[in-house]
Amino acid sequence: MARYEARIEITHLPGILDPQGVTVERALPSLGYTNVTRVRVGKSIRLEVTAPDEATARSQVVEMCERLLANTVIEAFEIHLAEFAG
Amino acid sequence: MARYEARIEITHLPGILDPQGVTVERALPSLGYTNVTRVRVGKSIRLEVTAPDEATARSQVVEMCERLLANTVIEAFEIHLAEFAG
Repeated sequence: MARYEARIEITHLPGILDPQGVTVERALPSLGYTNVTRVRVGKSIRLEVTAPDEATARSQVVEMCERLLANTVIEAFEIHLAEFAG
Repeated sequence: MARYEARIEITHLPGILDPQGVTVERALPSLGYTNVTRVRVGKSIRLEVTAPDEATARSQVVEMCERLLANTVIEAFEIHLAEFAG
């Protein structure tokens, strides 16, 4: 069994309203940042999985995203896995 | 001037309570995932910056994190920049 760290990024699907992103984008010019566009705020989840191999770990993390971590009606997710050295 | 996409990951500093992470970690075993540990939930922010070079873009994004996006008393941030091809 190996241990993997998963980094999951959950973002709004295109076309879904992102009120936090809009708020940040409106606040930045008043702080002097007029060169920033397309602000989007999502979630970042990190977790550690023990699995026999990377394919098993990845398919479990995909399942967790679909069942619990993301709302796939309005959100997309992206998974990055890295095996632990120690 | 070039355009850069910044991906910012905002996490809790070590030792700071992460109630969302705790909640997810407690929910996973009842869904059958008993091999998951160290769940941490943070924020993921993406934005686009126009700047003369990557160093300028990066230092502006660091500043935005310190002034607006992260609460550096309890949060850490990590920045990844990529230049846009088109």
